[in-house]
Amino acid sequence: MAVMTTRRAIVRRGVSAPDDLAVEAPLVLGLDGEAVATLMRTPGHDLELAAGWLTVESGVRRPDDIVQLRTCREEDTDRVHMTLAAGVTPPRPRAFITSAACGVCSADVLDLAPLRRATPHTPGWAVDRDVLAGLPDALRARQRAFDKTGGVHAAALATADGELRCAFEDVGRHNAVDKVVGRALLDGLLPATDHLLVVSGRVSFEIVQKAVAAGVAGIVAVSAPSSLAVDLAREHDLLLAGMVRHGDLNVYAGAELVS
Amino acid sequence: MAVMTTRRAIVRRGVSAPDDLAVEAPLVLGLDGEAVATLMRTPGHDLELAAGWLTVESGVRRPDDIVQLRTCREEDTDRVHMTLAAGVTPPRPRAFITSAACGVCSADVLDLAPLRRATPHTPGWAVDRDVLAGLPDALRARQRAFDKTGGVHAAALATADGELRCAFEDVGRHNAVDKVVGRALLDGLLPATDHLLVVSGRVSFEIVQKAVAAGVAGIVAVSAPSSLAVDLAREHDLLLAGMVRHGDLNVYAGAELVS
Repeated sequence: MAVMTTRRAIVRRGVSAPDDLAVEAPLVLGLDGEAVATLMRTPGHDLELAAGWLTVESGVRRPDDIVQLRTCREEDTDRVHMTLAAGVTPPRPRAFITSAACGVCSADVLDLAPLRRATPHTPGWAVDRDVLAGLPDALRARQRAFDKTGGVHAAALATADGELRCAFEDVGRHNAVDKVVGRALLDGLLPATDHLLVVSGRVSFEIVQKAVAAGVAGIVAVSAPSSLAVDLAREHDLLLAGMVRHGDLNVYAGAELVS
Repeated sequence: MAVMTTRRAIVRRGVSAPDDLAVEAPLVLGLDGEAVATLMRTPGHDLELAAGWLTVESGVRRPDDIVQLRTCREEDTDRVHMTLAAGVTPPRPRAFITSAACGVCSADVLDLAPLRRATPHTPGWAVDRDVLAGLPDALRARQRAFDKTGGVHAAALATADGELRCAFEDVGRHNAVDKVVGRALLDGLLPATDHLLVVSGRVSFEIVQKAVAAGVAGIVAVSAPSSLAVDLAREHDLLLAGMVRHGDLNVYAGAELVS
C-alpha cells in the first residue's frame, strides 16, 4: 500500500508539532525502455495514472492497446514500464513541441477532435440538477488524504444517479483525473458515455481535454472553469457545471442535459 | 491592454445570466525561430511570463542574458519570440526527458542546485510573524481578476516589511509565479535575496523550484505544501509558511527566520 501522506515537525503558534502532508514524489514513465515523462504525483494507483496518461497522450483506446504496465523502483525512484500493442500511436512530446516553422499553429494546441472517442451521451440522456449539486459532497466524503492534509485534489467518475464508480486523490489535479481515466480504461469502461467526471478544483483546458479523451458526458467541478474550458465543452457537447457550493451551481455548457 | 476576463452566458437557478470567466489561451514561446513551449495562460504580462519561464528553464540569470523578447500574434495565436545572448544555456525539454537508459535517476528530477543563485537571505535577516500572516491578504487585495471570476491564482514578490513589489494573476498558479520571477529578472532584482514569494494556492515541487531560481528567502502560501516542497525548502534554507488563514499560520521550514 503506497503512502499518500507523511508527517513533518512544523512550527505553529511558536510550538513545534507534527503535521500531516500530502506526499509528492516523481514517477518516471518508461516506454520500451526509454523514459518518456516524469510526473510529480502522490504515490498510489501508479498503474491507473500511467494508463490514464496514455489514454490522453497516445493512441491508447482500449485495455488491449496496452500490452504491459509494470511498476518497479530503481535508483530510488518509482517507475512504470509501459509497452503498447503493435500499431498503437505512441505519446508525443508536449511541453516541447518542435517545429521547423516559427511556432505551432493554435489548431495543433486546441484541436481535441483526435481525442474524441464517441458521442458523450445517448439521446435523451439527462442528469438531475440535485444529483449534480450533490456530487462534490460525495467526492469530498472520499477525500481521506485531504482530511489529513488539506492539500490534495481529487477526481471521480460518477453515474447520472450520483453513484461514484471510482475516486482518486493526488497533489496534482491533472494526475487525479488521469487516475480516474486510467481506472476506467483498465475496467473497459471507455468511452465512459453517460458518465460524469467530478473534480475538486477548477476546470482548465487540460481537464476538458481529459474528459473528451475519456468520452464522458460532462464535468462537475467545485470551482470555476476558464473561458477556454467553457468554449471547448460547448464545442464537444459536454455538460459543464461549476461553482457547486451549498446546493447552488452554475451550468456553463450543456444546460439542456440538466433536468 | 490584454483582456484577462471575459463573459459568457451561463445558467444559474434555471435562468440564463452573464458570468465573468478568467481567460485561458495558448502562448507559444519561440527561441531562434523554433517553438519550444506552449503555455496555457491568462493573457497579459506575456513578456514577464516568458522571462520568468526562461529564468527557471534555461541558463538566464540577468537581464543581459536575454537579447530580445518580442510579442506578436500570428495564425490567431499569441507568441513571444525570444533570443538569448551568446553562451547562455538554452531551455531543455521537460515533459519528455529522453534517455538512452531505462528512465532518469531521481537526482535529475530533484536536484535544484543548478538553479541556486545565491544565499537566499543575508545573515541576521528575519521577517516578523505578523507581516507573514498579513501577506496573503495584501495579495488578495491585488487580485482583481479573482474578484470577478473566482477562478484565478496569484503570486507576488514581497519585502520583509510586507510591501508587495509586484503581483500577477493567471489561471495557472505556475504561470503567476513565472510572471513574478520574470518581472524581477527584467528589473534586475534577481537573485531576490531577502524577498518573499507569496502564492495564493498550494506549494508543490515546482513552486519551490521557481523560488530557488529566483533566489528568494522564502515562500508564503495560503494553502498547504507537499512533503517534497517542505523537504526541498529545508534543503535550500528557505522559509516556508503556509495555511495562512485568519491570522494563523504554519511554519514548515526556516522557523528561525521568523521573529
